[in-house]
Amino acid sequence: MKLMEEKILQEGQVLSADILKVGSFLNQNIDIKLLAQIADEIARLFGDCDVTKILTIEASGIAIAAAAGMKMGADVLFAKKHRTSNVDGAVYSTTVHSFTHGEDYNVVVSKDYLKSTDRVLLVDDFLANGKALTGLMDLVDQAGAELVGVAIAIEKCFTGAGDKFRAQGVRLESLACIESMTEGNIVFRA
Amino acid sequence: MKLMEEKILQEGQVLSADILKVGSFLNQNIDIKLLAQIADEIARLFGDCDVTKILTIEASGIAIAAAAGMKMGADVLFAKKHRTSNVDGAVYSTTVHSFTHGEDYNVVVSKDYLKSTDRVLLVDDFLANGKALTGLMDLVDQAGAELVGVAIAIEKCFTGAGDKFRAQGVRLESLACIESMTEGNIVFRA
Repeated sequence: MKLMEEKILQEGQVLSADILKVGSFLNQNIDIKLLAQIADEIARLFGDCDVTKILTIEASGIAIAAAAGMKMGADVLFAKKHRTSNVDGAVYSTTVHSFTHGEDYNVVVSKDYLKSTDRVLLVDDFLANGKALTGLMDLVDQAGAELVGVAIAIEKCFTGAGDKFRAQGVRLESLACIESMTEGNIVFRA
Repeated sequence: MKLMEEKILQEGQVLSADILKVGSFLNQNIDIKLLAQIADEIARLFGDCDVTKILTIEASGIAIAAAAGMKMGADVLFAKKHRTSNVDGAVYSTTVHSFTHGEDYNVVVSKDYLKSTDRVLLVDDFLANGKALTGLMDLVDQAGAELVGVAIAIEKCFTGAGDKFRAQGVRLESLACIESMTEGNIVFRA
């Protein structure tokens, strides 16, 4: 998606070999024109999938999921992060290791809100090592729901995680795929 | 807003004298038809205010802010919650006492994303005792930005906090105002 790549080139800050800061337009301050285009693009890619539920993780996936949900007419559900494993039986729960914070946390959704009849599109702002995405897929599995696809705003292709999911047959679409990044030089997959 | 009141009556669960659970349609699972109407209503109420920035707090205000931002063409910014007070000089920071969790937390936004030229609309899912809202107002003050109004999905009028803000001259609009609530009996302000 051209506008996403332009914003990354103009405003993205490569803080380290692994960290790209996009707080000015995507995951703290949200450029609303970009968000509208993200929603249009996700709807174009997955509009034929009869999605009934868009699932994301708090907090930075929520705006993208909400925008896509409004465009596609599908309800949005966000999984919550908890530091403790003290969760009751009314939730599906999985453990995710945070790449950014170097710790494990529990990711939960209420069983009331994710059903075996749901056709689920997973949405997130970043795909790096795939741990969060694996956690969300686990929640979909636990619910017995159907995973119809994954929409990612920015994929760090160089980790290989996204291509592993694709090789497993997951329909995974990224709006920008970063092949390599260093300060002042970000290269997208052609 | 009629649909909001209907959803609260149909699906809201009064868990205690102070707690109304709306996870099935507003703050975990998000009913997308409701969200679209919320956006329309906020745009109708504040469309004449030249809003440049919609500010909310993670996590459950984000979907509402994103929907309203798309409708109004204003960028969205969400303040982050931190447990520690270890924040650097690049952020505006304030302390908020959480009513739900019984602890203080820091609420921060990057100085880069909130400017003295901004005309800010505050958005949140709930207004109960007003602590979070006071914190957001403090961030707006620190930035030297102009507060043009506050849009709340569900106000617990019985706390009196919303009316205090109104008496101070804040343009505060709630889409549903709960005058009283007990299990099986929720009364809205006429």
